[in-house]
Amino acid sequence: MTVTAAQGFLASGVAAGIKESGAPDLALVVNRGPSRAAAGVFTSNRVQAAPVRWSRRALADGALSAVVLNSGGANACTGPAGAEDARLMAEHTARAIGVADPHEVAVCSTGLIGVPLPMGAVTAGIDAAARRLARSGGEDAAVAIKTTDTVHKTSVATGSGWVVGGMAKGAGMLAPGLATMLVVLTTDADVPAADLDRALRGAVRTTFDRVDSDGCMSTNDTVLLLASGASGITPGEAEFADAVHAVCRDLARQLVADAEGASKEIEVQVVGAASEADAVTVGRSVARNNLLKCALHGEDPNWGRVLSAIGTTDAVFDPDLLDVAINDVWVCRDGAAGESRDKVDMSGRRITVTVDLRAGDESAVIWTNDLTAEYVHENSAYSS
Amino acid sequence: MTVTAAQGFLASGVAAGIKESGAPDLALVVNRGPSRAAAGVFTSNRVQAAPVRWSRRALADGALSAVVLNSGGANACTGPAGAEDARLMAEHTARAIGVADPHEVAVCSTGLIGVPLPMGAVTAGIDAAARRLARSGGEDAAVAIKTTDTVHKTSVATGSGWVVGGMAKGAGMLAPGLATMLVVLTTDADVPAADLDRALRGAVRTTFDRVDSDGCMSTNDTVLLLASGASGITPGEAEFADAVHAVCRDLARQLVADAEGASKEIEVQVVGAASEADAVTVGRSVARNNLLKCALHGEDPNWGRVLSAIGTTDAVFDPDLLDVAINDVWVCRDGAAGESRDKVDMSGRRITVTVDLRAGDESAVIWTNDLTAEYVHENSAYSS
Repeated sequence: MTVTAAQGFLASGVAAGIKESGAPDLALVVNRGPSRAAAGVFTSNRVQAAPVRWSRRALADGALSAVVLNSGGANACTGPAGAEDARLMAEHTARAIGVADPHEVAVCSTGLIGVPLPMGAVTAGIDAAARRLARSGGEDAAVAIKTTDTVHKTSVATGSGWVVGGMAKGAGMLAPGLATMLVVLTTDADVPAADLDRALRGAVRTTFDRVDSDGCMSTNDTVLLLASGASGITPGEAEFADAVHAVCRDLARQLVADAEGASKEIEVQVVGAASEADAVTVGRSVARNNLLKCALHGEDPNWGRVLSAIGTTDAVFDPDLLDVAINDVWVCRDGAAGESRDKVDMSGRRITVTVDLRAGDESAVIWTNDLTAEYVHENSAYSS
Repeated sequence: MTVTAAQGFLASGVAAGIKESGAPDLALVVNRGPSRAAAGVFTSNRVQAAPVRWSRRALADGALSAVVLNSGGANACTGPAGAEDARLMAEHTARAIGVADPHEVAVCSTGLIGVPLPMGAVTAGIDAAARRLARSGGEDAAVAIKTTDTVHKTSVATGSGWVVGGMAKGAGMLAPGLATMLVVLTTDADVPAADLDRALRGAVRTTFDRVDSDGCMSTNDTVLLLASGASGITPGEAEFADAVHAVCRDLARQLVADAEGASKEIEVQVVGAASEADAVTVGRSVARNNLLKCALHGEDPNWGRVLSAIGTTDAVFDPDLLDVAINDVWVCRDGAAGESRDKVDMSGRRITVTVDLRAGDESAVIWTNDLTAEYVHENSAYSS
């Protein structure tokens, strides 16, 4: 179902020949309305891919009729020619689906940086995808945006007579300000663009923005939310926000679960913080500590590396009052050894690291994964 | 030679039984004067080991008669008992070498965090080390402070009638604000504490502080400089600063060369920066990018990952004017593909990444290494 769970949406995914492997690599998501309201959140990396620059402008009026997405090439760091290619993708898509203004089409690309897209294959792929647009095309679209993802990621939340559905790709460079992560959410709720924007930003802030797989921030991250209004229902603001949040959270967890080379899914919970900002800062510092990520990979409850990571931040805490639990065993109390590390069972795939800063009542959760030899292998061989 | 290259210094290293392996693990460096002037730089991690807290206080008056160092245990995150152990090490050393005030003794520890030191072994080791103090003991001391180091690290710079010598340990957690890095420098120049401090801080700022092996900052980093004045010579300030800088730079390069699991030594040169701070910020961001470190391990000149790392900083630059060279081949020009990546030979152990921000005349160099499966293995198994 995914992006076509909501009424008013058609989608498709095809193998356009952008990837040398011949795997599916081009997707379309089309909003048939009656509403065209849309919102988006983009990477905060200052080096932004051409499609991100295009889509940002396309969204300026809060309306989109379609999204064209390709894997197999990021169209990032491609200079003026890359900007031209992103514009051509929007124009070609607009013609293929019968939309007058190319600024109603957002463009998303993912893959290697610095390599021009094979535009002949791309435009032929857009034509083929336009011919295959269907209510049943959501899964094909989700598959076509995969890069190193081992599975495609979809999610749906159901309201009273309306739904929010989504698809995501991403398996590396997962980091703050999003990741090499493309996400398209759709809804048939009738919600104006400003409200879509508020719901989406609220959801992203505590879901995709709290994923920190490897500390690397991509040039292409994009999260879009399109509303068709086809259900004729305008949900209450909180109800709609909850549904968007649920889909974002589910997709974010799927991204972490499929991170390149990961053998552990790690949830860093920071509690007792003086502020939410402090909790996020500490959580990120812990989640990015390579030594800790190696230790957790080795099922070693190395709380010293947690303290060492906390100590690099400017958060409010007293080093002699820090408590740390790993899988609920408080192995560090008052900044020193607590319960026996032998009590910690780390054999499962999920690991929880809890930090109590004992400085307040605020909290935050950051999701990450372990650092493995497979991660090194996958990322040293990717472009070769 | 090393710390005993300078007149007035004795040193020794013994196997005290702190390490289960039976390898050397305790070192003494003693300054017989006539001067006792000293300076130190410590980790900026807010979680600081007991010996760091002790040595900081001991150095408050700018004078030291000795340094006692142990490997096999960091005495970090060990609570009030750990503070007591650090004090006992200083007191025991002072007695063993005939010094009245334990505050003339600095203490350095390295090894696992959170584990109490076996104080019986430590004090017996101090007695044994005191008996073996010798002008020829510098190498033994350098060997005794190794942890995962594969080689011991020493360096000497010679002035006109005076020398600066040093030893260092460190092979992981190398990061800004120093690393799990213990460094002792000695000189027989006659230099007052304030001038030692200025020379040491100046040298550390552009050497040890520019090493960023794995982005992790230790709880125990210490760099000490002790002056005996035994040469009777007071060098010119610039001449002395140059010698201290030369020894620090040489030892810093040795630390990067011996980083855990590394197969490449990487020099990140940032030029054309609007400020030195910008150059350092960009250099660190590039040096810490796991994806790039994997790519360089795989001998892949992946300049896109360099741009992606630059884009996460707040330095002054225009994304469309960035140039990047790998081993002097400008593979990225104007933020897009430049010369062919096929021209880049990355088969050697040393790799240079040059970033031209084209925003000014300032520059900085950061030294790092690649990310390897061996790093993951070594750091997932270390404490098990």
